[in-house]
Amino acid sequence: MEYTEESDRIVVRLDPGDEVLASLETLRDDAGLEQGFLMGIGAVDEVVLGHYDVSEQEYNEERFTGQYEVTSFLGNIGPDKIHTHIQLGDENFESLGGHCSEAVVSGTFEIVVFPGETSLTHQLDERTGLDVFDL
Amino acid sequence: MEYTEESDRIVVRLDPGDEVLASLETLRDDAGLEQGFLMGIGAVDEVVLGHYDVSEQEYNEERFTGQYEVTSFLGNIGPDKIHTHIQLGDENFESLGGHCSEAVVSGTFEIVVFPGETSLTHQLDERTGLDVFDL
Amino acid sequence: MEYTEESDRIVVRLDPGDEVLASLETLRDDAGLEQGFLMGIGAVDEVVLGHYDVSEQEYNEERFTGQYEVTSFLGNIGPDKIHTHIQLGDENFESLGGHCSEAVVSGTFEIVVFPGETSLTHQLDERTGLDVFDL
Repeated sequence: MEYTEESDRIVVRLDPGDEVLASLETLRDDAGLEQGFLMGIGAVDEVVLGHYDVSEQEYNEERFTGQYEVTSFLGNIGPDKIHTHIQLGDENFESLGGHCSEAVVSGTFEIVVFPGETSLTHQLDERTGLDVFDL
Repeated sequence: MEYTEESDRIVVRLDPGDEVLASLETLRDDAGLEQGFLMGIGAVDEVVLGHYDVSEQEYNEERFTGQYEVTSFLGNIGPDKIHTHIQLGDENFESLGGHCSEAVVSGTFEIVVFPGETSLTHQLDERTGLDVFDL
Repeated sequence: MEYTEESDRIVVRLDPGDEVLASLETLRDDAGLEQGFLMGIGAVDEVVLGHYDVSEQEYNEERFTGQYEVTSFLGNIGPDKIHTHIQLGDENFESLGGHCSEAVVSGTFEIVVFPGETSLTHQLDERTGLDVFDL
């Protein structure tokens, strides 16, 4: 991972073999990020997608291996949680997507993070079992 | 809906049962938004997708009910129009997406809006029948 | 193409027949952009999608013609490279997506570009054959 901090953003490049979520945790700790919203594109060859079952209050996860273009990677960073969703296209341009708990870079991965002023902490919503923004 | 205004953004949390487009209208009116570009992720259990037929100059809409992760929610807010597109993943991580005219939150929905300086008003493009940015 | 420059962004409208990547090149040259991250939505009727084969170090590209909603268009602009990925929904709300090397606007296309402070130049990563961010 390489990154450059500017006054309103952090520009991030991830390289082959980098795991995206772990890299964002490292970035958060190194840059002292209390809040960030991010978007990215890239390519991955291994990814764990999740789908939340609200009634069961748990994520169903599945690991996919293959060559995928990442058409969108969106999410946010708080001190206590990093939350991202990912959309993928395979070699036939067919799509799959969901919650992203793991993704390993194959080609390159380009992210911009826009840090904010307040700390994006989370609180449990007992109705859903999710840790949601504490605003 | 809960939201926090910062100098360059509004951080928004929508809760189960909140309708996304109606919430954005409320936000626009409460915060006095004249222009905003937004991105978001979340989960919804009811959504109306649209596909515009340029030759017929009308949206074909279809309502979907189910548990969907929202892998991307992008769009913009003007005083006279809110325009959003949405991409969904189902429990098999299969994808569907289009213009979004309605979406009801199931888990949580996290949006960041970046307000701009000028009013994002619209004008009719008679070639397409669409209300487009008046720049 | 019409666009408005504000202190932290450029708001862009593309019109029927405009090719998106060529328009972004024009925008880059006209506005003197050295770095920009962008997001957009819209509709296109012709698009060239690409999928990168890391082992072969080449893009496999395919041209699609039809009426597509663009559910996400994300990417970045540097002086030496414009890199975008696109996600599409067809008239049945089915999805396809990948790297985007060409897209022709049918309805309208709405982009916001956030210019940055440093020049987003690229360097060759010999492991992958890709021109990646030189950070």
